[in-house]
Amino acid sequence: MTQKQLKLGAFFSSGHPAGWRLPEAFPETDMSFPNYMHMAQTAERGKLDCIFFQDTVGVVGGVKENATPTKCRIVWPEPATLIAALAAVTKNIGLVSTATTTYSEPYTIARRFGSVDCISNGRAGWNVVTSQVELEAMNFGQDSHMEHGARYEKAEEFVDICFGLWDSFEDGAFLRNKETGIFYDPSLAHELNHEGKYFKVKGPLNLPRTPQGRPVIAQAGSSEVGIRFAARCADMIFTAQSTIPEGQAFYKKVKEQVASFGRNPDHVKIMPGLMPILGATREEAQETYDKLVSMTLDEVSIRSLNHYSGGLDLTQLDPDIPLPDLPPANTAKARQDLIVAKARAENLTIRQTAQYVAVAQGHHTVVGSASDVADLMQAWLEAGACDGFMLMSPFYPVPLERIVDHLVPELQRRGIFRTEYEGTTLRDSLGIPVPENRYTAMAKAKAS
Amino acid sequence: MTQKQLKLGAFFSSGHPAGWRLPEAFPETDMSFPNYMHMAQTAERGKLDCIFFQDTVGVVGGVKENATPTKCRIVWPEPATLIAALAAVTKNIGLVSTATTTYSEPYTIARRFGSVDCISNGRAGWNVVTSQVELEAMNFGQDSHMEHGARYEKAEEFVDICFGLWDSFEDGAFLRNKETGIFYDPSLAHELNHEGKYFKVKGPLNLPRTPQGRPVIAQAGSSEVGIRFAARCADMIFTAQSTIPEGQAFYKKVKEQVASFGRNPDHVKIMPGLMPILGATREEAQETYDKLVSMTLDEVSIRSLNHYSGGLDLTQLDPDIPLPDLPPANTAKARQDLIVAKARAENLTIRQTAQYVAVAQGHHTVVGSASDVADLMQAWLEAGACDGFMLMSPFYPVPLERIVDHLVPELQRRGIFRTEYEGTTLRDSLGIPVPENRYTAMAKAKAS
Repeated sequence: MTQKQLKLGAFFSSGHPAGWRLPEAFPETDMSFPNYMHMAQTAERGKLDCIFFQDTVGVVGGVKENATPTKCRIVWPEPATLIAALAAVTKNIGLVSTATTTYSEPYTIARRFGSVDCISNGRAGWNVVTSQVELEAMNFGQDSHMEHGARYEKAEEFVDICFGLWDSFEDGAFLRNKETGIFYDPSLAHELNHEGKYFKVKGPLNLPRTPQGRPVIAQAGSSEVGIRFAARCADMIFTAQSTIPEGQAFYKKVKEQVASFGRNPDHVKIMPGLMPILGATREEAQETYDKLVSMTLDEVSIRSLNHYSGGLDLTQLDPDIPLPDLPPANTAKARQDLIVAKARAENLTIRQTAQYVAVAQGHHTVVGSASDVADLMQAWLEAGACDGFMLMSPFYPVPLERIVDHLVPELQRRGIFRTEYEGTTLRDSLGIPVPENRYTAMAKAKAS
Repeated sequence: MTQKQLKLGAFFSSGHPAGWRLPEAFPETDMSFPNYMHMAQTAERGKLDCIFFQDTVGVVGGVKENATPTKCRIVWPEPATLIAALAAVTKNIGLVSTATTTYSEPYTIARRFGSVDCISNGRAGWNVVTSQVELEAMNFGQDSHMEHGARYEKAEEFVDICFGLWDSFEDGAFLRNKETGIFYDPSLAHELNHEGKYFKVKGPLNLPRTPQGRPVIAQAGSSEVGIRFAARCADMIFTAQSTIPEGQAFYKKVKEQVASFGRNPDHVKIMPGLMPILGATREEAQETYDKLVSMTLDEVSIRSLNHYSGGLDLTQLDPDIPLPDLPPANTAKARQDLIVAKARAENLTIRQTAQYVAVAQGHHTVVGSASDVADLMQAWLEAGACDGFMLMSPFYPVPLERIVDHLVPELQRRGIFRTEYEGTTLRDSLGIPVPENRYTAMAKAKAS
């Protein structure tokens, strides 16, 4: 049996909240297109499966009452627009953008991601989210955020509609026959005529079937309802476990649910977030880590922890008391559980929990040499705790360059990461098939 | 006084309905990104102000009952996605995409076009439409299309919200001070808190002020309400007059209305559509034109004319009777008037009217050498009938290459078109200023 291979994504956020302040950091990471281009091309040089952009449709925390002028995650290009631009200057790397089903229309999202799939020749991915932040609602005519269960119910219907729209035209529908003047075959074109609880969409989508059949679906919900949703329709799952036993339990649970939906568990890739703080030596890595921690202002990290506090304002409490019990969250439920578990296990204060969460928003952080980090990644892979990782960077561009120049070669030496892309599409890299068009499948079933 | 200069856009549609059938035509114009890239780079080589993409959120005419397999305008990449990709492979040319205010959310549109403006370093334009086709409604949960007047009322509120959102952060709001850790200045950040008839949007937009202050606004409505809308908020007007007197009347009317809104009439550019059928000689051009007409199937052109028929199905009538009176249209009202006027003036049959409309959807067509076409353009410019033209191509890529290689040099020789870009943004090319941020203006007014 050949060695199981890691799938690797580069996850772009603004990085560690103090990362931009380091002397070697490029402080305009958030808005510079040349910088995004450099990051995408660097990740592609490292043969990574994809780059992955998070998103929020609003300014988290607002800008007026309680505004935190030290907060660096304020503005960024809309990521589905950004991946379209990056498609034109890359060749092999997958391009994954977040978009919310709570404040979008299915026809619009199906078109946008389908268009990126066409423009990029089969490299688009859509990270489906239901929105985490109350404030987003107020940018879309609502007074408050939809309840967690209803959001996922709406998301399921939304994704089903997109799947239907992406099948609007079967393969071969466009003939473009100059002699006869016949441009397309209407018998291979299909209206969806969807009418459901949240949406009514006639179709067809005004796009041919895309190079990947449809874009890759990513998902990051780890609550019960989130897992069910992912098992039903996702191709990649971005998650946040930080120990091998946690990872194994999650992995097993998801793969079983995938199978229960009649899908092949190998076709759903589970990729926990991992922030490697890399140095030429373990000591050098530790120095970088210590510098990041020392430059993190409490007001930033505690406000950031507030995002998972279920409404309790932690900035009003003594930062040196143990993390108190938190009211249940309407958003990022599973993340809250992981953070509280970590705080209880290590008896952390509010300040310490906030410092921990600040590093990678509660994702697993590892400090060391390329070999140390590769050891950890290999152990997770071999223990069946993941299919790969979403690699995070505390700042840009140096840590991502280190991943590509030091960590990737170490993984390649161990035979657990590709040295060349397997094909040209994101599905080729992930090793997941192009889904069959539903109407083609029906026609085949009828004929047999 | 220096010679008045033409502003020129390249308008991309699928071209003439028979254009793709010509031996030299590239038949996959609609879906090939390398082809779009070639077109954008060709237009940029010709120093054109912008490229301009139309859009419809649906398959015009549907694919089931009455489907026309010879219709070539069926699928294309969502154009705001496409211009983002083109931003990465061009440097100077403006990138204008259509998006509808009838089936979008202002926060989403402000973000997308603002993001393209950032990625392109100030070259984004948004062509505001209210949607023309009944079928679009059904892809967005509606049973029928909104009434014309209400659509424009909604569009006005929509654009006002976008203008507000684009001012969310004043210039200089982002400090990114590594020493102090101060990332931005909340006193330069503003919530919009809009509550109107159609929308409620809190803001701020999660984007800094864009390189152009805000994207350029284009508009194509020529009805009374459309002109009012354009005069109030547009920077470029794409119109469809086809004689100098019609052009002069429209020009005068629009510029007066622009002034009545307290705006500088020179800052609103009026650009009629023009399809030059170019040949090395007039005879060669006529041959191309004749070939296009002879290859146009009646079923395509009469169906295309049906789009402006106010609901009367012209395919059911004898094509050789004079064009009958048409019921008033809910969409493209002004275009219907221009088409009927043309048919009455020249006593055209249904078939002849359809052939005429098929060439350039009722836009002005001119057949001749580069010098013939330049004569016409110069005459319009000097008569005060336009500020420039939106140039259309019957197919790709040859006619656009001819525009750039033959027509542009002729216009440059006459001193009525630039030989180098004036600056780096679309506003620089058009000669229109960056609008002042509303909050900066208020602060100045308060201080003085």
